[in-house]
Amino acid sequence: MCQAVQVAASVSTPDVCVLGLGLIGGSLLRAAVAAGRKAWGWNRSASTVDAARAEGFDADTDLSAVLRRAAESEALIVIAVPMPAVDATLAVIAEHAPGCPVTDVVSVKAEMAAAATRHGLRDRFVGGHPMAGTSESGWQAGDVDLFREAVWVVSADDGVDPQIWSQVAQLALDCGSLVVPAESAEHDAAVARISHLPHLLAEALALSGAAGGDLALGLAAGSFRDGTRVASSAPDLVRAMCEGNRDALLSTLDETLEVLNRARADLAKKGTLADLVEPGYQARLRYENRERWTITGIEPGSENWLERMRDAGRRGGVWRP
Amino acid sequence: MCQAVQVAASVSTPDVCVLGLGLIGGSLLRAAVAAGRKAWGWNRSASTVDAARAEGFDADTDLSAVLRRAAESEALIVIAVPMPAVDATLAVIAEHAPGCPVTDVVSVKAEMAAAATRHGLRDRFVGGHPMAGTSESGWQAGDVDLFREAVWVVSADDGVDPQIWSQVAQLALDCGSLVVPAESAEHDAAVARISHLPHLLAEALALSGAAGGDLALGLAAGSFRDGTRVASSAPDLVRAMCEGNRDALLSTLDETLEVLNRARADLAKKGTLADLVEPGYQARLRYENRERWTITGIEPGSENWLERMRDAGRRGGVWRP
Repeated sequence: MCQAVQVAASVSTPDVCVLGLGLIGGSLLRAAVAAGRKAWGWNRSASTVDAARAEGFDADTDLSAVLRRAAESEALIVIAVPMPAVDATLAVIAEHAPGCPVTDVVSVKAEMAAAATRHGLRDRFVGGHPMAGTSESGWQAGDVDLFREAVWVVSADDGVDPQIWSQVAQLALDCGSLVVPAESAEHDAAVARISHLPHLLAEALALSGAAGGDLALGLAAGSFRDGTRVASSAPDLVRAMCEGNRDALLSTLDETLEVLNRARADLAKKGTLADLVEPGYQARLRYENRERWTITGIEPGSENWLERMRDAGRRGGVWRP
Repeated sequence: MCQAVQVAASVSTPDVCVLGLGLIGGSLLRAAVAAGRKAWGWNRSASTVDAARAEGFDADTDLSAVLRRAAESEALIVIAVPMPAVDATLAVIAEHAPGCPVTDVVSVKAEMAAAATRHGLRDRFVGGHPMAGTSESGWQAGDVDLFREAVWVVSADDGVDPQIWSQVAQLALDCGSLVVPAESAEHDAAVARISHLPHLLAEALALSGAAGGDLALGLAAGSFRDGTRVASSAPDLVRAMCEGNRDALLSTLDETLEVLNRARADLAKKGTLADLVEPGYQARLRYENRERWTITGIEPGSENWLERMRDAGRRGGVWRP
């Protein structure tokens, strides 16, 4: 069992029950087992379960049975199903394993927290979001090392149970990730800026290039290629991700439209782009030179621990494995 | 002399006089010599000229002398100085070598054509723009293969001399480039779309990420990294490039602001980004699948040759070396 770091002195490492064995859930099951955790999974598709079993993993298509087993051992349940399936999954958890700690790996965190509340599971729920993925999907695409060195946000919202928070963070550390504590709303605002807005701008840039026809596309070089790269992502995945974070994305998009409108006015009236280009260059440098520092000395459950965690996350702090 | 292809049956290959021996001019001098062309260069800096001479190239700091030599042999003069130095350079050309054919490698083409007109050189001038470069600059960064497989636009404006057009295109072919014929205004509109707009969007995206502080920058992954890459370019170079193409860039930027405003309204009112993401994906696919075809059978100077060249360029046609 390779568990070098503990997020809290007294953290327990419960069994892990993974619901959904696609790219993320399948990688998580592999990584948890590799870290010495007892773990099993559920998937609705028999062929996925067969594939997991053929590789020696403990998997089943019977959701009720899988959850009753989780209830018996007080396992940590990880929701790894697509967003549209989350509500139905929470309903079955509430029926068969209402006392288990629950987390998720399904992107937008405020929406997940609201869903947990709707099903009476808010006090057992601590959201999570590993910033890992590839353009592939499905169990076969999974990788035991997918989360290694990745950043994994663990929600530090008011009222969370420190014991469950520690269990979720410990699972992320066991998978080799760096844990970033953040409030759900702050997480959603941050990913709108660095993950969802880039997709919108890439789509808009691709449209501008194509509107220039074969002449423009034939002259395109590195700046266009890189600036439009993520426009080649599957449209339904891009839409699900961006539309699911609507409020935060609208706010970020409004900011950016204001920046571009100001630049437009400066260029038209004064012939200068200085107020866009100079700060934009500095912002990119800040990104290139960002540094992570290691959080220590905040014991979950101690006085003001949530505020201290959130503050550390805001300032670039991480828990390291 | 490795000159596999000729742009015209009767094209002459005059000596080449390169003014400015930075990254582009320095690479051009090397490539022209490697192709068997007689070529020499000028640079205002003695240390650059010394470096070029040390590598066996014919270079001088005396602009008048260099141009008088060009006039004697009716050399093709290539302007490779920074945009702010173009007017002064044209003035000296008009004084010492007014009969020579002149081209340039200085990006925005309508502005260059206007400058040539101001100095009475419009009938001897055919603009050019090799779509090649690196983030480095100066003679030392030059590379004999910089233009190999690159696209090189040669301006096909009304009234150009077909003999000079052929000489300029032939030089580009000799350097290993694919020649795209395009009217100056169409070139400027195209590069606004695929080169200048990407810079503006990258700057704006970098600002959005940095506004999210260390939390957002710490969560940033591939989409943000690639979408902001060109924001790390030197701000003065980005400004010179974008501000120099003001009218075309404003037009492209307005189009893109309209696209983003529409997407914003759809997301706010209907919760959907379908009308941005689906066409954006198709546009990126069109870019990925673009194909170049080889122009043949258009003899510069023949009937309607300019219209036919421009039409071919618009449809993805190139002259190949």
